[in-house]
Amino acid sequence: MLITASSIQEGNASYEKLHQRKLDALSEDLERQGLEVENIIKALQAFQVAIPSWALGRGGTRFGRFQIGGEPRNLEEKLMDVGLLHQLTQTAGAISLHIPWDIPEDIVAIQQIAQNNHLVFDAVNSNTFQDQSTQEHSYQYGSLSHTKEAVRTQAIEHNLEVIKYGEALGSKALTVWLADGSNFPGQQNLRKALDRTQHSLETIYQSLPQDWQLLIEYKPYEPNFYSMVIPDWGTSFLLANQLGDKAKTLVDLGHHLPNTNIEQIVATLTWQQKLGGFHFNDSSYGDDDLSVGSAKPYQLFLIFNELLEDWDFSQALAWMIDASHNIKDPLEDLIQSLEAIQIAFAKAQVIDRKALHEAQENNETTLAQELLQDAFLTDVRPLVAEARRREKGAIYPLKLYQDLKIREKLIQQRGFHQASGL
Amino acid sequence: MLITASSIQEGNASYEKLHQRKLDALSEDLERQGLEVENIIKALQAFQVAIPSWALGRGGTRFGRFQIGGEPRNLEEKLMDVGLLHQLTQTAGAISLHIPWDIPEDIVAIQQIAQNNHLVFDAVNSNTFQDQSTQEHSYQYGSLSHTKEAVRTQAIEHNLEVIKYGEALGSKALTVWLADGSNFPGQQNLRKALDRTQHSLETIYQSLPQDWQLLIEYKPYEPNFYSMVIPDWGTSFLLANQLGDKAKTLVDLGHHLPNTNIEQIVATLTWQQKLGGFHFNDSSYGDDDLSVGSAKPYQLFLIFNELLEDWDFSQALAWMIDASHNIKDPLEDLIQSLEAIQIAFAKAQVIDRKALHEAQENNETTLAQELLQDAFLTDVRPLVAEARRREKGAIYPLKLYQDLKIREKLIQQRGFHQASGL
Amino acid sequence: MLITASSIQEGNASYEKLHQRKLDALSEDLERQGLEVENIIKALQAFQVAIPSWALGRGGTRFGRFQIGGEPRNLEEKLMDVGLLHQLTQTAGAISLHIPWDIPEDIVAIQQIAQNNHLVFDAVNSNTFQDQSTQEHSYQYGSLSHTKEAVRTQAIEHNLEVIKYGEALGSKALTVWLADGSNFPGQQNLRKALDRTQHSLETIYQSLPQDWQLLIEYKPYEPNFYSMVIPDWGTSFLLANQLGDKAKTLVDLGHHLPNTNIEQIVATLTWQQKLGGFHFNDSSYGDDDLSVGSAKPYQLFLIFNELLEDWDFSQALAWMIDASHNIKDPLEDLIQSLEAIQIAFAKAQVIDRKALHEAQENNETTLAQELLQDAFLTDVRPLVAEARRREKGAIYPLKLYQDLKIREKLIQQRGFHQASGL
Amino acid sequence: MLITASSIQEGNASYEKLHQRKLDALSEDLERQGLEVENIIKALQAFQVAIPSWALGRGGTRFGRFQIGGEPRNLEEKLMDVGLLHQLTQTAGAISLHIPWDIPEDIVAIQQIAQNNHLVFDAVNSNTFQDQSTQEHSYQYGSLSHTKEAVRTQAIEHNLEVIKYGEALGSKALTVWLADGSNFPGQQNLRKALDRTQHSLETIYQSLPQDWQLLIEYKPYEPNFYSMVIPDWGTSFLLANQLGDKAKTLVDLGHHLPNTNIEQIVATLTWQQKLGGFHFNDSSYGDDDLSVGSAKPYQLFLIFNELLEDWDFSQALAWMIDASHNIKDPLEDLIQSLEAIQIAFAKAQVIDRKALHEAQENNETTLAQELLQDAFLTDVRPLVAEARRREKGAIYPLKLYQDLKIREKLIQQRGFHQASGL
Repeated sequence: MLITASSIQEGNASYEKLHQRKLDALSEDLERQGLEVENIIKALQAFQVAIPSWALGRGGTRFGRFQIGGEPRNLEEKLMDVGLLHQLTQTAGAISLHIPWDIPEDIVAIQQIAQNNHLVFDAVNSNTFQDQSTQEHSYQYGSLSHTKEAVRTQAIEHNLEVIKYGEALGSKALTVWLADGSNFPGQQNLRKALDRTQHSLETIYQSLPQDWQLLIEYKPYEPNFYSMVIPDWGTSFLLANQLGDKAKTLVDLGHHLPNTNIEQIVATLTWQQKLGGFHFNDSSYGDDDLSVGSAKPYQLFLIFNELLEDWDFSQALAWMIDASHNIKDPLEDLIQSLEAIQIAFAKAQVIDRKALHEAQENNETTLAQELLQDAFLTDVRPLVAEARRREKGAIYPLKLYQDLKIREKLIQQRGFHQASGL
Repeated sequence: MLITASSIQEGNASYEKLHQRKLDALSEDLERQGLEVENIIKALQAFQVAIPSWALGRGGTRFGRFQIGGEPRNLEEKLMDVGLLHQLTQTAGAISLHIPWDIPEDIVAIQQIAQNNHLVFDAVNSNTFQDQSTQEHSYQYGSLSHTKEAVRTQAIEHNLEVIKYGEALGSKALTVWLADGSNFPGQQNLRKALDRTQHSLETIYQSLPQDWQLLIEYKPYEPNFYSMVIPDWGTSFLLANQLGDKAKTLVDLGHHLPNTNIEQIVATLTWQQKLGGFHFNDSSYGDDDLSVGSAKPYQLFLIFNELLEDWDFSQALAWMIDASHNIKDPLEDLIQSLEAIQIAFAKAQVIDRKALHEAQENNETTLAQELLQDAFLTDVRPLVAEARRREKGAIYPLKLYQDLKIREKLIQQRGFHQASGL
Repeated sequence: MLITASSIQEGNASYEKLHQRKLDALSEDLERQGLEVENIIKALQAFQVAIPSWALGRGGTRFGRFQIGGEPRNLEEKLMDVGLLHQLTQTAGAISLHIPWDIPEDIVAIQQIAQNNHLVFDAVNSNTFQDQSTQEHSYQYGSLSHTKEAVRTQAIEHNLEVIKYGEALGSKALTVWLADGSNFPGQQNLRKALDRTQHSLETIYQSLPQDWQLLIEYKPYEPNFYSMVIPDWGTSFLLANQLGDKAKTLVDLGHHLPNTNIEQIVATLTWQQKLGGFHFNDSSYGDDDLSVGSAKPYQLFLIFNELLEDWDFSQALAWMIDASHNIKDPLEDLIQSLEAIQIAFAKAQVIDRKALHEAQENNETTLAQELLQDAFLTDVRPLVAEARRREKGAIYPLKLYQDLKIREKLIQQRGFHQASGL
Repeated sequence: MLITASSIQEGNASYEKLHQRKLDALSEDLERQGLEVENIIKALQAFQVAIPSWALGRGGTRFGRFQIGGEPRNLEEKLMDVGLLHQLTQTAGAISLHIPWDIPEDIVAIQQIAQNNHLVFDAVNSNTFQDQSTQEHSYQYGSLSHTKEAVRTQAIEHNLEVIKYGEALGSKALTVWLADGSNFPGQQNLRKALDRTQHSLETIYQSLPQDWQLLIEYKPYEPNFYSMVIPDWGTSFLLANQLGDKAKTLVDLGHHLPNTNIEQIVATLTWQQKLGGFHFNDSSYGDDDLSVGSAKPYQLFLIFNELLEDWDFSQALAWMIDASHNIKDPLEDLIQSLEAIQIAFAKAQVIDRKALHEAQENNETTLAQELLQDAFLTDVRPLVAEARRREKGAIYPLKLYQDLKIREKLIQQRGFHQASGL
């Protein structure tokens, strides 16, 4: 264990007093406004976000990949890295695996490591967007939408295998993201490709365990593309609707055309009870997979505002960070992302929701805007820190991570080898 | 009548020979490729597009409006202008009315004029995006989605009234476009607004005559907006689906976010048998309502390519031009738009569809692109002109319009008065 | 006078204690971080933003305009409204006029009113995007770029007249925004149009008083447009560079293509000493002219971060709000906008700039992000309120405006008449 | 030699008659309109486009790369592939090298191969966006803009080395494209980064041979980016202007924000005599590097329309295709791209330019649009084929390439080895 309970306690010690003073001042303010601070802190304590196994090492670009060292070399080390994040932040109590990158060889051992690190297994992800050396048919021209039945069958079977691994580990959802599509007008028969996708998904859906969900991700384009087979929430919703109650839409914040009002999509999907999960990240232009909240923090807040309109949202969803850190320490980046998510969640909770609903009902525009801004401008960091502190996490996780020189220790342990499966 | 059969015949006379030579050469080429030219010409002859009553005069901008003169002063003159367009192009055999701009005072007289001009009445359009001096409640904060029941009721009743006028005239569809939405985050409860919209639409749907369709238009934003209550095809589709078989989605080419693949939306909606109609126009940036085909002619061709995947598309749809001509002669602009639509339709018909389907099936990317480009590069204007000629329209309608000095004559007749209801 | 010094003092009285406590807590925090709180407050006190005369009444849309009542009926009342805003916020110490909407009939009287309200006259704006009934030539096809010399001359002379009015009132800058452009490819010779624009601007520049600036605004499109004669900062910069030192670029936040990095444009222009001024507003899609900071508050903060890289930026620039409030009380909206600007300015000042520069120099990405986020997450509202309080403005201007029922009083005084020149 | 003069002649033989008939019919039409067909054909014969060495093999995506086989294994084979393209199309008479991918080991031998294939060396491209195993400093945080002098010096020296290779081969231009930028707000000091870039470019410029040009490429973003150091034409122009007459802007069609009017940038740059070259490709969303003309053929035509406003444009520019073909045969794709460029060039030449200028001068919008559309709708393929035929190229190069089974032969010769330096 790189971090012990006592090292966290020691790390917190010097900040306790200052933290308490800030928390008291903020609590007093919020309570004067009629908010129940304890409830907010409890909600923050309960809120957990999954870390994807592929975000623990540095990602690359088409021009290469810059090594940082100390990256996990296998699934066990990935679990330990998430465990470390969870120790510090108490918000990262789940991991999301990608098959075949993360095929567990010894299920029991893996489960033991997860348990030791207080982690559960979130949605498992299938991968039919990349050819594996062992597979018979190439996905060059699609997978679940391919014109040839043999390729579709191979892709379907891969998904069924992913479910099997997920079941063994205790996952409750399968996330399907397809890079199926076309580069040129005319290349693909758009209607038939969608029709084949629907049929393939139906076969997978029929094999879904009773208490599982099938999460259908959408995305408007990949580099070089002209069309994607599931380009937008409407197509994902249409497919999920036809499949049944266990099929839902998954929203990745980076998978939208310029100027899309994502929070409205969230509102529409929750209205229809079809929002199945989130991939958090941020971006300035496209699917940039940058640290959550780094580019558009107000949008993140507005999304949480919509989610909070649905009282029991925290149970239903697969929350996950989906980011790629090619120039930062991946663990530092994830700590920043987790903090940004908690801050947005806390800010959405300090909205005077009753007053907001009244203002909306009466079309009091200035007031409604004022209520949102008031919450957004509030510095809620003491609430987020307090939630962590109560769970025995670090008051300032990033500082502690740096003070404890975790990266240096990881490099010592693991060397400069590249992360597995990245 | 500004144009007589003989003036068209005389106008055509000087071009007949050249036209015939071009047609022969093209026909020979196409038949060598295995296409049945006669069928294409017949499809072009049959294809009719509705002209909206509001496109016959010059539109304005927020900075003013530039008079052209000779604009129609009442519904009768609007019908006569469409009749004139139809005489020339033989493609404009329908008119689409906007209530309350076009309330017919004498139904029988209006029907007579329509009949004389060989026009039918396409979808009628309700208007709850603009306050009328006679209405009790303002639509400042919405209509079918308004928080107050009284406002919603007023908006619903207006739609029912529009249906009544439409029935009297022989329309078979109601188009609903809502400018309901919000300018600021927080102003509107997005979920509740959509829920109210759904309920309002249900009431309207229940009053829809048996053989009618309810066409639900979508649009991502108006100037100043943060959210629109029906922003995208997904929301329109969701609502139409819940309403029933008579409810369908209407696609306006200008109502999309940057980089949207509109032809894919068309493919998805036809796959679901939920495409109800079109508003044709073109744009470089937003909802610019410019002449069809003036900015992105290849996109228009690709849309027709998708439509032709559905053999009986021409019967099911409400085809309409929705444009606004603030610096052109509106009638000239409409002639150009009609020509552009027919050209795109003709080009889509000269695609070797069987070969395309095979190339798609076999993922022959280069070949599929070649087949589309080959059709797009073909100069199909002789086919379009021939379709007109056979229907006793003008071979070159724009030239004839100018040669006959129609605008000057309209100004003489009607003066510089502003068009009614614009 | 609708508001007296004593009414502000009374309004503040009940908040003084709470405000002081918040200010003390924040000051302590900031000083612990090594910031000089007094300097920040002084900078906020000194910072003034011009109110455009056209933002004082409700704007319209293409579908109409919703009356609010109490809008100013003439230039005198516009000045008094800005005076009122300035009394409350102590940040609105300037007004920006639009000719011919605001032609002063009695210069001395106008100056007296301005002086009584502690207002100066910021940049004057010419208007060649709208035809006036008195003008000889129409701007339908352009003004400074028009193909006909007579039209260009008329537009040039209008600008010279605007300078004359500005000189009389004490303005020091002319802002030129052109709606010149084209709707269709081919309509305009792009190169010649730009060339003519350059020559027209040269003539205006030659008549510019010695201590004036010529501010050249850019914009990528208007509704219906295909091209604008000055579409981007590059074109504005090119023209300003050719004209000389007194010509600079003006940035309107709403005048950019989707995903533009505006703060980088600000950085580039200040690097070149060619940033001449700002039009503040916000938008979700296009040129929406919404309340500053209502859609993208982080972007606003990043812009101020860039501005603060240039130590004496506050002297050089023409800061103005350019917004249009079609569903809010315009004065409430301006109070919100002024607050948002001050907040962004204050947040940019609490960045630990020395540490940021070091992090940038050493490419410490995580740290640089942390420093920006730390400042952005700080609740600086007590600093902004304190700056106002010291200048004898309201601690909470929006609350006081509402408590004093200013709108009701304005309606009583002025009735429901429409604002002049809007 | 895979293709002999006689195999081309034989290939053409069966099409000669049909081609001639089409050419005659088109020529008659065009001459009736007053166009000089011979001049158009001669211009097409003279027009040459460079093929970049990296487009001859299949490109990859972040998910992998699909082998096609027969890709060139070294610079010699790259030259031979371009030679083959040139034999077929007579339009690909130049190659553009990328250093260090294409370092020539035996200059004389390389020159000999080029000469045998009738190829010249177009602009050479430096590469500081990718770390090479041999370099001392990483470009992870920038190259010409890096905060550390040592890194900048390394990048400058690389550029000087590229010039040296270019001189040896007979190139006359250096193209600089930088992936320098930042992923997060705050990471980089935008102003200082630009300042350092300027100084680095100055050093390079000083070493530029007398008859060379320095072409500065711009691009708004890479995946993951927040800012690019040269994001737009304005920044490139600014830098080029400060450097001097030999520095010019290079336009890559895929390097623009959504909805950018690229043809207007072309017009502005030619007006300023600062357009230095082109990278042709096409895209639906971002920098997709797809076959030229496959997504937006009308835009390509409008760009050529602007270029033709400048009579001697063809001499001044570095024309290059910059595309990446991950699912097509790269040579087939390049043949399609070359054809698309020639078609756009031919269509721009059949515009009645005198009439267009008059229509523009008189603001005859309908007519101007009609003139452009008339040219665009003309099927100019016989002119393009004729230009090739006269130069002893193939009438239908793609057909001949397939009929001669070139890919199969290349695979036989070279096997399935990956292209060098890709």
